[in-house]
Amino acid sequence: MSSPNSSADVFPATERSRLRRRHDRGSHKHADVFAVLDACPLSHIGYTIDGAPYVTPTLHWREGDRVYWHGSAASRFLRKVVDTPVCLTCSLLDGYVLARSAFNHSVNYRSAMLFGTARIVEDVAEKAEALRLFTESYFPGRWEHLRPMQDQELKATSVLWMDIEEATSKVRDAPPGDPEEADVPVWAGVIPVRNGLTEAQPAPDLHGGIALPAELDALIRSGRLR
Amino acid sequence: MSSPNSSADVFPATERSRLRRRHDRGSHKHADVFAVLDACPLSHIGYTIDGAPYVTPTLHWREGDRVYWHGSAASRFLRKVVDTPVCLTCSLLDGYVLARSAFNHSVNYRSAMLFGTARIVEDVAEKAEALRLFTESYFPGRWEHLRPMQDQELKATSVLWMDIEEATSKVRDAPPGDPEEADVPVWAGVIPVRNGLTEAQPAPDLHGGIALPAELDALIRSGRLR
Repeated sequence: MSSPNSSADVFPATERSRLRRRHDRGSHKHADVFAVLDACPLSHIGYTIDGAPYVTPTLHWREGDRVYWHGSAASRFLRKVVDTPVCLTCSLLDGYVLARSAFNHSVNYRSAMLFGTARIVEDVAEKAEALRLFTESYFPGRWEHLRPMQDQELKATSVLWMDIEEATSKVRDAPPGDPEEADVPVWAGVIPVRNGLTEAQPAPDLHGGIALPAELDALIRSGRLR
Repeated sequence: MSSPNSSADVFPATERSRLRRRHDRGSHKHADVFAVLDACPLSHIGYTIDGAPYVTPTLHWREGDRVYWHGSAASRFLRKVVDTPVCLTCSLLDGYVLARSAFNHSVNYRSAMLFGTARIVEDVAEKAEALRLFTESYFPGRWEHLRPMQDQELKATSVLWMDIEEATSKVRDAPPGDPEEADVPVWAGVIPVRNGLTEAQPAPDLHGGIALPAELDALIRSGRLR
């Protein structure tokens, strides 16, 4: 028997995030939203500046229901969006779904749409720790082996964050949805997308004897992107 | 000798699209923007509704400098964005770039950011033709084999478009940029992302004897996503 969700496990939904169609594909559950967010290496963050929309691709990382991203401290753009509403969307295309009619064509995918308010990390120590977690979130175990961060690098980097106020995930993972048209004589099925990493390319100047660390090798073999 | 660009080959840049940093990675040229746009299967479209940002993932297709996307005609959301400004961004992550310092970590990627105004296709015949081009843009040669579109399917689908008013592309495709730190004893290099399709999965109800069409087989073997 599945246990009912407590409200603590589900993001609230208002007009902006409420699932309107295809409820079967959507969820407001923390676990479902986090699963998509943590699997996506890239997100697309939407801001409104002077009334007009901007969407920038960026890497993101997460601590609980707080999401972080970063950018250049020299960016006028980043400074303008602090304390304004944000929509962070990330998507993985998992396959093309080819049906017998154009209308029933679809894609298999995982996506999450998050709403919050952009904040900037002001405290220097907090920023340094956030950047450590950024690196570790993509490449666990790597931070301690890196040349330590320098003060001017820390100054040159802005870290933004938002607490997730509302969020939805959507997932489609199925064959074409038109079995009633199986007599139409055209190929139907799914063409999956490869989501994964491939063989590491050492830097041209890498000193001999420095092997690919086991954790990076494991990431490549995992079939995941992060 | 390369010929200079005429203004007809370059999108205009204003405050919202002007390249501010890393000019070496960016371009306003039509050819560069179209190359990224046409390689990306998914885009993320940003709208402003009641002053707040929304980013939705969607498929897109292009005819010249006009970009199209579609959605459910029942979507209140789509109707609200007609005649409003749009930012369409698409990105392909091509690899993780691991340097000797956290600061010099990067990603190899291709991205394009387009600005325009959302319009809706009103004319039914024009909408039908746009949807044909949509299907053909992803799966050339497929349309003529499909069960023909029905009137109620056409009514249930909205097609939006925008003329590209301004656009930039950005590309990074290089090893780590810190050869001066090659003495730091940590692995550095690029871990490329697989961008491609994999073996087709026939629908469970596909009649025997319907083979995968050659053009789909070629797409899978191309290593491209579209």
